[in-house]
Formats: sequence, structure tokens, C-alpha cells
Amino acid sequence: MPFKLTVLGSNSAIPAFGRNPSGQVLETDNSAYLIDCGEGTQMRMDEFKIKKSKILVIFISHLHGDHIFGLPGLITSYCLGGRSKKLQIFGPHGLKEFIHTTLNLSYSYVNFDLEITEIGTEIAAEIYSDHNVMVEAVPLKHRVPTMGFIFKENPRRPKLNKSLIEKYNLSKEQIVQILNGEDIGMDEEWFLAPRIPRSYAYISDTSYAPEIIPHLKGIQVLYHEATYDEDKRTLAEERYHSTSVDAARIAQGCGCSKLLLGHFSSRYHSTEPLAVSAKTIFPNTECVHDGFVLEL
Amino acid sequence: MPFKLTVLGSNSAIPAFGRNPSGQVLETDNSAYLIDCGEGTQMRMDEFKIKKSKILVIFISHLHGDHIFGLPGLITSYCLGGRSKKLQIFGPHGLKEFIHTTLNLSYSYVNFDLEITEIGTEIAAEIYSDHNVMVEAVPLKHRVPTMGFIFKENPRRPKLNKSLIEKYNLSKEQIVQILNGEDIGMDEEWFLAPRIPRSYAYISDTSYAPEIIPHLKGIQVLYHEATYDEDKRTLAEERYHSTSVDAARIAQGCGCSKLLLGHFSSRYHSTEPLAVSAKTIFPNTECVHDGFVLEL
Repeated sequence: MPFKLTVLGSNSAIPAFGRNPSGQVLETDNSAYLIDCGEGTQMRMDEFKIKKSKILVIFISHLHGDHIFGLPGLITSYCLGGRSKKLQIFGPHGLKEFIHTTLNLSYSYVNFDLEITEIGTEIAAEIYSDHNVMVEAVPLKHRVPTMGFIFKENPRRPKLNKSLIEKYNLSKEQIVQILNGEDIGMDEEWFLAPRIPRSYAYISDTSYAPEIIPHLKGIQVLYHEATYDEDKRTLAEERYHSTSVDAARIAQGCGCSKLLLGHFSSRYHSTEPLAVSAKTIFPNTECVHDGFVLEL
Repeated sequence: MPFKLTVLGSNSAIPAFGRNPSGQVLETDNSAYLIDCGEGTQMRMDEFKIKKSKILVIFISHLHGDHIFGLPGLITSYCLGGRSKKLQIFGPHGLKEFIHTTLNLSYSYVNFDLEITEIGTEIAAEIYSDHNVMVEAVPLKHRVPTMGFIFKENPRRPKLNKSLIEKYNLSKEQIVQILNGEDIGMDEEWFLAPRIPRSYAYISDTSYAPEIIPHLKGIQVLYHEATYDEDKRTLAEERYHSTSVDAARIAQGCGCSKLLLGHFSSRYHSTEPLAVSAKTIFPNTECVHDGFVLEL
């Protein structure tokens, strides 16, 4: 099963240098999950060849415009495009009013099953699960109620090692015994170790919040906002945002294998210096860009 | 003075083939007027090198999402970017609630003078004027209250013909007499004929509405929606949209010099066939595209 991340927008509030506001897609075989939905998200999905109809669930971190202003257009396109599949949206309080008001005033009629769930952002909690993933929301420290999302692939069952079955030419009865965990009197590892479940954490927007580290332990890939470089620490603190060094400290603390930086201020033409600062603390750091893809 | 049209989005409701929803900018020397504001309008302004700060007034034809979903993002960018200049927005009833609700729920604080004027769409009326232009709203025939907009450059004063002043070496007193319209006993045309005021009409969205023709008499350039080609006439009528032939009939009726077609259905990969159909009735027809520019 693929576990593929595509970044649709890598900038913070004001679009700049061709960088768009926040939006990411995590794709598995038949499903996809949209994380935040800034203005233009539906166009970026077209541009980066992501089938809009594949989106099962949308997770909204907070209600700042650069994370939600693409929702009315995307939902309207689903209405006009004849979506029949259910769409679930999770986000903070106020999300229902935002969606219902924009759709009603624009004369959009939702003709599919749209389920909006508003959740508190004060405590960490599992908010969603299906046959592919479990999603946990984690409180962040921003000017408005905000949460991060941790995606964990469901553990796989160990697979029977077929080569051993062939090697010993086992009978059906013996195979059933092995599957039932019974001893058939042979000292072999009948099962192949399953792949380690993949995991991804999306942390945007927040000031430096080391209290989230325990929730992130064991995560493979961490996306953490890095609106500013270290020389703008005071500004970052004033605006409840992080520097790229803050992000690196969180990555170091949680022991992930890779750190992705995004949500860049429109003051940066090149974002590379932010990665340079972060790498002094967490070497495997990379800045994302619109269209960035990572196969986990 | 320039009188320059830039098309930001040429598609109808669902973005397709790189074509974005409605948005156009009409620029003069120091001012610019935005007509409709579909999702992504602020990004298209960046892409097509239009200074967002130049926009004085926004005219909204109707409240369907593909004409308004870019407003919250644009206004928020003005807030964050430190706009100080007043912004006026004209549009149908419901526009205030749309703007206020989206800004409030997204914690956006308007820190400049934002004046929203809701206008009835039942009768034609002059709704705006300044030192450059006069704008008239014209009722259209769509599923929801909708108006078109006619932009007319203010008439210029005739300019004194300086070469004649030099030729006859006129005194200051004689010049004042000429400016006051007095006869100084010489049979000359002291004034150069002023340029004919330029004019542009934006007609989107509407079914075929020949009743608007009297309002469009004397217009130079007409933009008229052409969601469908002639073979989709029934669909066009059902959905209160026009075919390109409908648009051509309106152009022929009002005697404009040029017809621009836009607001294309996402069923069309190439829009050229729509121009071919229209040209059988009105030869000087052109399909617009995102980034299309016309100096009037």
C-alpha cells in the first residue's frame, strides 16, 4: 500500500513567490486524506494529479483563512461534479457555520453525505480511524484554537511465509494449525515480520511547544511549521509561530527520521536558509514546496 | 491613460484545463477595478503582474461561488499586508453577510476602510463613478440575482491646439478668451477633438437576454459569457447560461466592435469551436484565456 504525501501549498498567510497557502494530501491505495484547505487547494490537486474524488476525509487544523478558504470551492465542485461518496470533515468549533454559511449564501446545494465534526482542541485524542489509518489530534499553541494531526497506519498482520510451506510441502491441515498458532512439531518462523506501520505528523501552526513531543514519539516523518528563520525569533514568538530551529528541536525530541519544514513567511524568496538553520540541530531536514512528494 | 483589461479566470464553476473561475481587472493610470473574484483571484493577480494594492473597487455580479470564493482570501491579504486605502465592494444582497461571516470566523480583523454596498439587481442603474469611469449595473437573467457591469470612461475635455497658439503667437488674454469660448475674430478650430471615451461591458452569467441590448448601445468591447457551444442550447437554457451564438447575437444587436467570450464549461478542452460558432454571426469574436490582455 502506498503512503504518499503531496504538499499542495507551502506558504503562510499571504501567497508569495508562487507558494500557495496550506494544504497537503496523504494517499493510500483507494483513499486520500486532505490536511487543511487553503485557497486554491482544488486547483493544486488538479495541477499535481490528485484525483479529488479520492478524498475521504478532510482535517482542518484551525480556522485561519490560509487553512480553510479553499473549502467552499472544493465542496461546491463536489456538488457540481456529482460526488456520491460520503465526505467527512474534522475541525475546530466554528467550522460548521463557516461551511454552511458560505454554501447557503452562494446557493450551493450539498447533494451528498457531508458530515462535519467539530472537535475541542484542548486535549489530545484519537478522532478518526478506518481500515487504513488512525488519526490523533494534538493541541498546539497558536493565537486561535489549533491542533496538529498524527496519522498512523494500522498495524499489519504477519504474513505466512509461503516459501517454507512449499519447502516442507505442508498439508492444508498443517497450514490451518500454523494459522491457529498451534505447534506442528517443527522449529521454524512460519510468519514474515510485518512492515513497521508508517506514520506522519502534521504540526501547523504553533509556537514552540515541547509538550507535544510525547505524542510524537515513534513518528517517522514530522512536518512542522517554520514560518521564520532563527533571526526572527521575537517575531515568531509574538505571532505564535515557530522558527525552523524550533521545528528542529521538536524533531530531535521526538526522534523522527525526517523533518519537513513549511508554512513559510512571504518575506522569504528562498526558503533554503531556514533548512540550513534547522540542520545544525536535526540534519535530516528538508523544506517542502508546492508539489513536493514523499513516499513514506 | 491606459484602459487595460486582464482576464484572471476564464472558466465556469469547476476549474478545468488550467482555466480558473471568474475574475477580471480593468486598469487605468493609478486605479484598477476588479470584476468578480473567484477562488484564486489573488494568486492570478500575482501571476499576471497586477498590483493588488491598485484595486480601488470590486464589482460582484452574483453570489455563485465561482464569482466570490476568492474574496475572503483577497481581503485577508489586504489586512495582513497593511492596506490603508479604502476598498469599496458592490454586489447583490447577501454579500455583506458572506464577507463578514468568513472574516469573523477566520479571525480576520479588517484594519482599513472596507465599504460594502449591496444593490438590487432588478433595474439598470449607475452605481459608481470617480474621476476615471462611470459604472452602470444591468439586470441579467440567471438562476440567482445577477447583474452585468458597463464601464464608461469619463468624457475628456477638448484640448487647446498648442500649435495654433504658437502659429499666431497669441497673447495670454486671447488664450483666456478662447478657453472661455469667446470669439477672437479668427476662423480656426482652436480645440483638438478629444478621444472617444472607451467603454467595456461585462455580461456574466446569463441566459440569452436581448433586453439588455439598449443598455449596451455604443459599447466598444463586450465580454459575454459563453458557457456552451450551440449544440448544447437546451442545456444552456435549462441552466440559465448562454451559448456562444447567443453572445454573438447580443454583440450584433449592440453594435460593439469586439466580442470576448468566456466562462467556459469544464466540458471543453479547447474553447476555439465556440468562437467559430459565434463568428458566423459576429466575426470579430475572440475567446479569452487566463492571462488574456486587451488594451482598449
